[in-house]
Amino acid sequence: MDMNELARRVKEASIVLASAGTELKNRALAQIARSLQDGREEIIRANREDLLRSEKENLPGPLLKRLKFDEAKIQEVIEGIHSLIELEDPVGRTLLSTELDDGLELYKVTCPIGVIGVIFESRPDALVQISTLCLKSGNGVLLKGGSEARETNRVLAAIIAGATHKAGLPPDWIALLETRSDVGEMLKMDKYIDLIIPRGSNEFVRYIMDNSRIPVLGHADGICHLYVDEDADIQMAVKIAVDAKTQYVAVCNAVETLLVHEKIAPAFLPELKKAMDARQVELIGCPRTRAVIPAAPATEEDWRTEYLDLKLSVKVVAGLDEAIGHINTYGSGHTDGIITRSGEKAARFMDYVDSGNVFWNCSTRFSDGFRYGFGAEVGISTSKVHARGPVGLDGLVIYKYRLIGNGHIVGDYAGRLKTFKHRKMNKDYGIVTK
Amino acid sequence: MDMNELARRVKEASIVLASAGTELKNRALAQIARSLQDGREEIIRANREDLLRSEKENLPGPLLKRLKFDEAKIQEVIEGIHSLIELEDPVGRTLLSTELDDGLELYKVTCPIGVIGVIFESRPDALVQISTLCLKSGNGVLLKGGSEARETNRVLAAIIAGATHKAGLPPDWIALLETRSDVGEMLKMDKYIDLIIPRGSNEFVRYIMDNSRIPVLGHADGICHLYVDEDADIQMAVKIAVDAKTQYVAVCNAVETLLVHEKIAPAFLPELKKAMDARQVELIGCPRTRAVIPAAPATEEDWRTEYLDLKLSVKVVAGLDEAIGHINTYGSGHTDGIITRSGEKAARFMDYVDSGNVFWNCSTRFSDGFRYGFGAEVGISTSKVHARGPVGLDGLVIYKYRLIGNGHIVGDYAGRLKTFKHRKMNKDYGIVTK
Repeated sequence: MDMNELARRVKEASIVLASAGTELKNRALAQIARSLQDGREEIIRANREDLLRSEKENLPGPLLKRLKFDEAKIQEVIEGIHSLIELEDPVGRTLLSTELDDGLELYKVTCPIGVIGVIFESRPDALVQISTLCLKSGNGVLLKGGSEARETNRVLAAIIAGATHKAGLPPDWIALLETRSDVGEMLKMDKYIDLIIPRGSNEFVRYIMDNSRIPVLGHADGICHLYVDEDADIQMAVKIAVDAKTQYVAVCNAVETLLVHEKIAPAFLPELKKAMDARQVELIGCPRTRAVIPAAPATEEDWRTEYLDLKLSVKVVAGLDEAIGHINTYGSGHTDGIITRSGEKAARFMDYVDSGNVFWNCSTRFSDGFRYGFGAEVGISTSKVHARGPVGLDGLVIYKYRLIGNGHIVGDYAGRLKTFKHRKMNKDYGIVTK
Repeated sequence: MDMNELARRVKEASIVLASAGTELKNRALAQIARSLQDGREEIIRANREDLLRSEKENLPGPLLKRLKFDEAKIQEVIEGIHSLIELEDPVGRTLLSTELDDGLELYKVTCPIGVIGVIFESRPDALVQISTLCLKSGNGVLLKGGSEARETNRVLAAIIAGATHKAGLPPDWIALLETRSDVGEMLKMDKYIDLIIPRGSNEFVRYIMDNSRIPVLGHADGICHLYVDEDADIQMAVKIAVDAKTQYVAVCNAVETLLVHEKIAPAFLPELKKAMDARQVELIGCPRTRAVIPAAPATEEDWRTEYLDLKLSVKVVAGLDEAIGHINTYGSGHTDGIITRSGEKAARFMDYVDSGNVFWNCSTRFSDGFRYGFGAEVGISTSKVHARGPVGLDGLVIYKYRLIGNGHIVGDYAGRLKTFKHRKMNKDYGIVTK
């Protein structure tokens, strides 16, 4: 089957899935969990094949590690599905209800976006996670995985399609693209795909953002900042900087640049140096930083770099406004924090820093859907429209306006025979069908 | 000044505008209204210049009509500004508040999107309308008007910038692009522009959607349908069809295609024909329609055509599912309605038709921000993300997560020293700054 026909079928099935009730979707999710459990030997066998072939093809070590999908990983995704079942259905919520005039009722009701295109590199757990998130939110999904994981992906997609069909959903809501063609073809399918979610390295995400007119949910860079104000508690600032830098270096919400008020720099920087030395963090500093502590010299490029490593760039600034200006120039709009005792300065920082997550006296590492209490995370978005920051299931829905009348025409209102009343109803949408 | 520097300044000013309070923004809006009133002679003089030049350059009649900006138009935009002042500020609303753990408070708070790029053809009132909507919602705005209106646009932009500066806002929040360069340059400024709102013909909007990676809020086509079900009240169906087609033909929410259940066609079509004949509406029909009433033969192209004229294509279908399939294939996701006495069929239609506005027993012409009670309309969107259907001020805002802690680090939670509590707070964001 050609890609276009496959996508058309997903679109068609997505219309049916959009109207599936919560119970049916949860039953299908439970069936997926059971089928993954039952199919684990088959999954592990396919994954071993992928691993062997990829090793022969000299796939780099970190990618091989991500490709591995063993018993523990399977249990992890199954647990994830059980948590997902517990979450509230994001579809069918009435956001607004207004009686425009007697007997003319308007409802704004959440609905799925439609078809989500998921493009991911080696990690096969991404296939299960995102497709179950799509199912819960009533979206069809077109998956394009890396060729290194092709056997594992094939087995996983077949298990998911089979399980949901068994539960009573149209099996075509999910499809795996397997042609040899470039990911580029998928990026052009704006006729069928409403949103793309890429999972992979920064370069990978950036490539997708730069090469599709379909909206993309995600972030390329996470260049996060901490600003240590003159009014900061020095011990708190050191503790938070260490956590933000070292608690997990390879993630987007780890801090990359520390900005320090010039008045606190002489007292703070030596303490920072001591703590970072103890954790093998290399410091890269501006000239004013290097006048206080030893550090490698920072170049302009350092302020734009996401190290994802035990490295931290440090800059001394004249004050709050220079810090805000630096962040809005070099940051990626992801997560930025201020350490200060002053509520006034914290408020100004949080107002003026143009990022999805702005923090006061806590670690940038809190920027995460699970920590925020969303129960599931679709991804973190640095977009300025639709969804920003950590995105939960809500990011996979949009809304429809449903208007119910009884022969109402606009001519009566244009001709002033009738006037709009616009009464708020606070009523959930629903049609009595019998 | 070059375009890039201009855009950079708007971005910078937008950060300040984003934090401006409701009172200040409303004061600035009131000052704009006053300054437009005071400057009306200058505006009319500039507009006369544009009209004379455009006439000489043989600008088509309808465009000349749109270009005209006289006393009445000025009063209209001034009235619009006064209504806008009355509307609730969409910025600063707390959408969610959760205590993640003791003393660690998360707030999801609405904020402006940033910088809106507005591209419009001849109509100078669009400049005033959209820039005041941007101001109310705290967004900077980069305007690119048609060269035919250049004198009028210059005067209007200067009046608005001057008035808001007088009220205490940074004057650079608004800028008019005046270079001779193509609109194409603006479409590439994704570094500074967060959202584009095009105002103009369908072709114009489509061109912009197809040529920018910046999100676009709008719609190219409005191919709206009415489906007359076998259970329809025939008199109601005729009345609604007439309103939807003829109440105002040149607009996006006018109906273009009527779908008729085969069982009701013999009784309904002659009534439709009579009513449409009385209003000089040309009918274009499928073979089964033409077997019942005289009509020009419809081609495949007709189902994809937005006539914006006294023309209506008519198709007889086997039932509800064929109607839904036709709409989801040929429609533009704008507004589609069903006429039926059956709640069950209405519910199915509204669930399965994948459009921003789905109607039961009323005219498609109701699909409009003012009629929906939004008080202002930014535009109508056929997008599946961010904003769909008629978009009010809410469509010009997004949100930020604001997290307030007291030295909280993630290490404590990863190490199980602490656990998240995720208590709902129902509390508005605010920092006591003194």
